[in-house]
Amino acid sequence: MSFSAVDRQMMARALQLAERGLWTTAPNPRVGCVLWRAGEIVGEGWHEKAGEPHAEVHALRAAGERARGATAYVTLEPCSHHGRTPPCAEALIAAGVSRVVAAMVDPNPLVAGRGLALLAAAGIATASGLLESEARELNIGFVARMTRGRPWLRLKAAASLDGKTALNNGTSQWITGPDARRDGHRWRARACAVLTGVGTVRDDDPSLTVRDVETPRQPLRVIVDSRLETPPTAKVLAGGGALVCAAVDDPERAKMLRAAGAEVIFLANASGKVDLGALLEELGRRGINEVHAEAGSKLNGSLLRAGLVDEFVFYLAPCLIGDDASGLFSLPALTTLTDKRALRILDLRQLGPDIRLIARPS
Amino acid sequence: MSFSAVDRQMMARALQLAERGLWTTAPNPRVGCVLWRAGEIVGEGWHEKAGEPHAEVHALRAAGERARGATAYVTLEPCSHHGRTPPCAEALIAAGVSRVVAAMVDPNPLVAGRGLALLAAAGIATASGLLESEARELNIGFVARMTRGRPWLRLKAAASLDGKTALNNGTSQWITGPDARRDGHRWRARACAVLTGVGTVRDDDPSLTVRDVETPRQPLRVIVDSRLETPPTAKVLAGGGALVCAAVDDPERAKMLRAAGAEVIFLANASGKVDLGALLEELGRRGINEVHAEAGSKLNGSLLRAGLVDEFVFYLAPCLIGDDASGLFSLPALTTLTDKRALRILDLRQLGPDIRLIARPS
Repeated sequence: MSFSAVDRQMMARALQLAERGLWTTAPNPRVGCVLWRAGEIVGEGWHEKAGEPHAEVHALRAAGERARGATAYVTLEPCSHHGRTPPCAEALIAAGVSRVVAAMVDPNPLVAGRGLALLAAAGIATASGLLESEARELNIGFVARMTRGRPWLRLKAAASLDGKTALNNGTSQWITGPDARRDGHRWRARACAVLTGVGTVRDDDPSLTVRDVETPRQPLRVIVDSRLETPPTAKVLAGGGALVCAAVDDPERAKMLRAAGAEVIFLANASGKVDLGALLEELGRRGINEVHAEAGSKLNGSLLRAGLVDEFVFYLAPCLIGDDASGLFSLPALTTLTDKRALRILDLRQLGPDIRLIARPS
Repeated sequence: MSFSAVDRQMMARALQLAERGLWTTAPNPRVGCVLWRAGEIVGEGWHEKAGEPHAEVHALRAAGERARGATAYVTLEPCSHHGRTPPCAEALIAAGVSRVVAAMVDPNPLVAGRGLALLAAAGIATASGLLESEARELNIGFVARMTRGRPWLRLKAAASLDGKTALNNGTSQWITGPDARRDGHRWRARACAVLTGVGTVRDDDPSLTVRDVETPRQPLRVIVDSRLETPPTAKVLAGGGALVCAAVDDPERAKMLRAAGAEVIFLANASGKVDLGALLEELGRRGINEVHAEAGSKLNGSLLRAGLVDEFVFYLAPCLIGDDASGLFSLPALTTLTDKRALRILDLRQLGPDIRLIARPS
């Protein structure tokens, strides 16, 4: 499939539009649409919120009659199914567009090529695969959930250059500076859920809400707490929207946490701990696309060992704390360096005095 | 003092020339000289090796009669004293140069402005301070030794992203890739001495020579070994050029190490350990400008606690090893994060798959 320079420009614009929904579309994907006819953009749109019109509908409304004979650039294959809104493929056909270019096929098994097939059957030229990797990155959580039933898990950690996240007395606020913290809140804001462990709740009593940046919604706060030890007064429970996942039931404690506004669920593995894989599948069933983990070395290590971490966002502060302090990942001792967990670095930059590093398992 | 664009260009050229002596001039500073007359460079030179002619002499020889009336750009104030070679200030006067621009005044108390004063007294226009910080960086070890009697200490460490340098069974070769290792050898090559601890000698048995890059000389290998536990068969002793610094004499062991070609000295502090400050002063007395430390967390921590580390070169490999492995710095536990050792980052880059970070205490 070959695309023109105009195709590329229009799809890049559609991706820009899609990105506006970064913090709001969940559980839906972020989608943008540009309608182009006779050398000009005649309509554009983006999906803002589940239940509200899709990107294509916004763009078609903006274009009106000028949509006839236009090329539609969409960052994701137009939907073919009746969900909360009617199928966009039908709307594009009805509007008389002559060509539809999608950045990627919809990984949703309810669509999965059917949208483009519907368009083609109506005599519309279709193509896909333009700026596909960019489009995939934009909806990496949605793609993960659709293709494997689990959300994308991004693990965020802030440490000193010698890999220490906290002193051995639990003190961890703040190792990094305001720029790194604000950036961390941006990642929290795009996630549908923030995941932490009861250790962090007890040591730091964080609220885990998005505060340093404006956001129209707060992520679900998920606490891994095998024995229901979260204090009912913990800030993370304040205002509701917290899910405590335990392994061992304790009706008294569960009742107290529910009274504090938390939802309590039980997902135990064979060793009597929280089954983290099952928890992530449960979050997937709830329409959570991206999970943002901010935890201590124990939960970090457990997530890593279980192969559940898809991405790491590390903030390294220009300081040294020393071996006696808390580290990043509790892992069983290795006997050979070939067993180290290899990552590949996707992005490296300075944020104020700190360094930010984005990596994925290699 | 104001300088012209030509002044700046010529001094930049002189600094380039000086840098050619990066691995060879010690104990002397790295110095370059450019002679400029009537719109062209009439001579240039750089100091290669102690005992051989200084940069100015090379440049004057190249210029011959054309040095008369020229401006001399030197990266360090011309010397005024009779060392192993006659004073350069006199040579410049004899050659009839009309102006001398120095990047910086010589921190050597035997010179310290006397060179420029000698020139001025002979009616030559003099100036200094052009690209001074660059010149100072180039001779940071020489400046340190001249002004405080101790060499510049650069601590190199390679670790995983979670700050682990070795497994708990001692395995540490190799965490980083070939690009980072070659870069590490370049830093070794510019140092006059490589410093390590007996723990590293026993765990890794490194030779600590410069191998991955070509070098005309090998640095002195210095081993901090309070109780003379270095095995006489250790690779670091091979071929001579090793200095073992102990705190407690053991004539038998000392004899064995001397038989293996090592020099053994004793510098104990009140706690019966090696007095690291005294060791560095001893290295300063021996004309060592830059010391390159490659050690384990114990010696790293001791150097840091003693305030002896001037610069850090960290290589971070894109992998995770886990808390059970060896860390970077043994330090006493902190009780508050305000006690963390703050650094400032001077340089951050990727070397192959790894990251290199240069930092100094802030």
